[in-house]
Amino acid sequence: MGHVTSVSPFAPKALPDVPEIPGVRFATAEAGIRYKGRTDLLVTVLDPGTVVAGVLTQSKTRSAPVEWCAEGLKSGKARALIVNSGNANAFTGKRGREAVEITAQAAAKAAGCSPAEVFIASTGVIGEPMDAGKFAHLLDQLAKDAVPGGFAAAARAIMTTDTFPKLATRSAEIGGVEVTLNGFCKGAGMIAPDMATMLCFLFTDAAIEQPALQALIAQEADRSFNCVTIDGDTSTSDTLLAFATGAAEARGAPRIADAADPRLASFRAALGDLMRELAILVAKDGEGITKFVTIDVEGAESDRAARTIGLAIANSPLVKTAIAGEDPNWGRIVMAVGKSGEAADRDTLSIWFGDFLVADKGERAPGYEESVVAKYMKGSDIVIRVDVGVGSGRNRVWTCDLTHGYIDINADYRS
Amino acid sequence: MGHVTSVSPFAPKALPDVPEIPGVRFATAEAGIRYKGRTDLLVTVLDPGTVVAGVLTQSKTRSAPVEWCAEGLKSGKARALIVNSGNANAFTGKRGREAVEITAQAAAKAAGCSPAEVFIASTGVIGEPMDAGKFAHLLDQLAKDAVPGGFAAAARAIMTTDTFPKLATRSAEIGGVEVTLNGFCKGAGMIAPDMATMLCFLFTDAAIEQPALQALIAQEADRSFNCVTIDGDTSTSDTLLAFATGAAEARGAPRIADAADPRLASFRAALGDLMRELAILVAKDGEGITKFVTIDVEGAESDRAARTIGLAIANSPLVKTAIAGEDPNWGRIVMAVGKSGEAADRDTLSIWFGDFLVADKGERAPGYEESVVAKYMKGSDIVIRVDVGVGSGRNRVWTCDLTHGYIDINADYRS
Repeated sequence: MGHVTSVSPFAPKALPDVPEIPGVRFATAEAGIRYKGRTDLLVTVLDPGTVVAGVLTQSKTRSAPVEWCAEGLKSGKARALIVNSGNANAFTGKRGREAVEITAQAAAKAAGCSPAEVFIASTGVIGEPMDAGKFAHLLDQLAKDAVPGGFAAAARAIMTTDTFPKLATRSAEIGGVEVTLNGFCKGAGMIAPDMATMLCFLFTDAAIEQPALQALIAQEADRSFNCVTIDGDTSTSDTLLAFATGAAEARGAPRIADAADPRLASFRAALGDLMRELAILVAKDGEGITKFVTIDVEGAESDRAARTIGLAIANSPLVKTAIAGEDPNWGRIVMAVGKSGEAADRDTLSIWFGDFLVADKGERAPGYEESVVAKYMKGSDIVIRVDVGVGSGRNRVWTCDLTHGYIDINADYRS
Repeated sequence: MGHVTSVSPFAPKALPDVPEIPGVRFATAEAGIRYKGRTDLLVTVLDPGTVVAGVLTQSKTRSAPVEWCAEGLKSGKARALIVNSGNANAFTGKRGREAVEITAQAAAKAAGCSPAEVFIASTGVIGEPMDAGKFAHLLDQLAKDAVPGGFAAAARAIMTTDTFPKLATRSAEIGGVEVTLNGFCKGAGMIAPDMATMLCFLFTDAAIEQPALQALIAQEADRSFNCVTIDGDTSTSDTLLAFATGAAEARGAPRIADAADPRLASFRAALGDLMRELAILVAKDGEGITKFVTIDVEGAESDRAARTIGLAIANSPLVKTAIAGEDPNWGRIVMAVGKSGEAADRDTLSIWFGDFLVADKGERAPGYEESVVAKYMKGSDIVIRVDVGVGSGRNRVWTCDLTHGYIDINADYRS
């Protein structure tokens, strides 16, 4: 990247300390795939018995690694995860598929498993042929070097235009035994909700059978990553994978087969919370961000309608530029609600910026004082609340503003 | 508007000379609704017998004037059209409806017709209460002063952030008699295809009955205004109205009752051509435009699918910023095709920038030379062609790039 990118003002001050997950080992390397002087290759070795669940982009032009993961999810068993940054291996035709196969075979040999148990994700430029020869020969030694922990280094190795690594941890109990959940993700542009957005990898030592893990992940993705948008553009490579090593079983944790098992209550809450934290970190690293925006929609026809309305607001260039300009231009919120396609009624619609009611049941709020609300807009965390007034559906969506920085970054990303 | 807006580099060098339309008279005034030192009020007086057809925004939060026009279109008779700029009278509640009624009554008195024969359109800021008292008292004198011709002044009076007036003319023959079609429109932001986009007014002396005119307008809107996007944001106020005075009947033109009448062939072609010219003028005045972009999609499942794919490309912030940056980043076109939701197959997809094949059936074209295509991207008219390779549907879409200028304009439109 030719441009200078400063770190997002919403970057956490420090990375969290995350504990090891028994059965998960990492190694990273500088393979020089595109970037120089930074890690761009992540090798993850997973103990035998690890199950994997995932959600993948719904794009019709999805990348070769995404197609590979879709195949692998059918068996649901994982022994290795290989991630590279700098090249998405997307729209690379037959050579793209070959690069994936070469990678899987090399990783399988290194981890002592079958290629079908290797998961692969690639992120970076679309359409550049991917030369797996650049890193396939490194996998054997990296698998040997892989050590428990190392989550922070792993989160760094998968970054592209991200300005900070995104890492989080939670603990939960299953049957009275504590289990750990760690996750990291990346994403800064081409971020829009169509299943799992961007790359996200979750790890736990809980013993959960694959169908149950898949159900949990799908439900929670809908309430986290699928509620985040930077620019409405859906990547060819979006991949969310969750690996459960089952190592907690040795410490007495029960093995859970059913997502509805009440013993999963703590785990489910921790998982959802972890995924929301990671999703919010993605929004907080939106390209060119100066304002972090939370949009609460209530009174919609359904929860799903509330999300659609929230995303129509969050994806509107006019709303996003108004926020960048610190302009409490609530008329643009009205516009976005109107264009969302969901049930709405102008005369029941109310809008708040922060605690300030600006529009009340179809017209400007009687007590509205623009100067007061304009002051609120100068803050860096903006909350927009919309009551559609036609039902009881609600949802929350996260996004950022649209600034000169976004244009700077994306007008010359490849140069 | 506090910012300095320079005229779009795509503004026509001169406005076309447009002939009078018998039965149509205009007057404009500086009513000071929001702007100072420019006209912001248009009064149009139409001869008895004029029929009107139209298409209106599908927004769920549509403005009071749009609701008024929807009512008026049921009878399909028009004697006056009142347009103001500076205030959209949208999301203005009961007072908004009252302002429309006051305007209609004053205009009806001035034109000697019933309020139901008065059509009203308002454009500008959303959510500001509209004071019809600012101009209702002017309507009587303006109706008296209205003169044939004056199309250029009319086109100027309805501008908001437009940097140039948008006016076009065509002629056609019906039953061997020449008829005239004139039109003008406005729109520069909050432009996206959901029925008629922005304000557009068409006038003809042809004698066409209302249902036939309505059918023609709806069909041609789908191939013109509904194929233009600036920012994907759909206005609360989009209004396209077509007025046919029937004055050509006195010169021997037949009165046409059926849109499928073969005698309408010339008229239909001229109407479509006129509407496309006006729609393209809207794209050429997109806020902050530096590149005018034509997107040709072929090989889609249907013509409608081709338009959806074209609009997914045209609305993608990543595609638009790449074009602004003169970057032939065709990977983002791949991404946009993939996210459109329409049938597509990565391995049959081919993409051209101008005459340069950049992606060929699922991977980078063998002869692709980035430096050559980068030179093409430095031009001001960019043509992107996409062959989806799954069917025979085709469509064309027009848009502009996304630049710092768009952000400048929209971060402080109201200040």
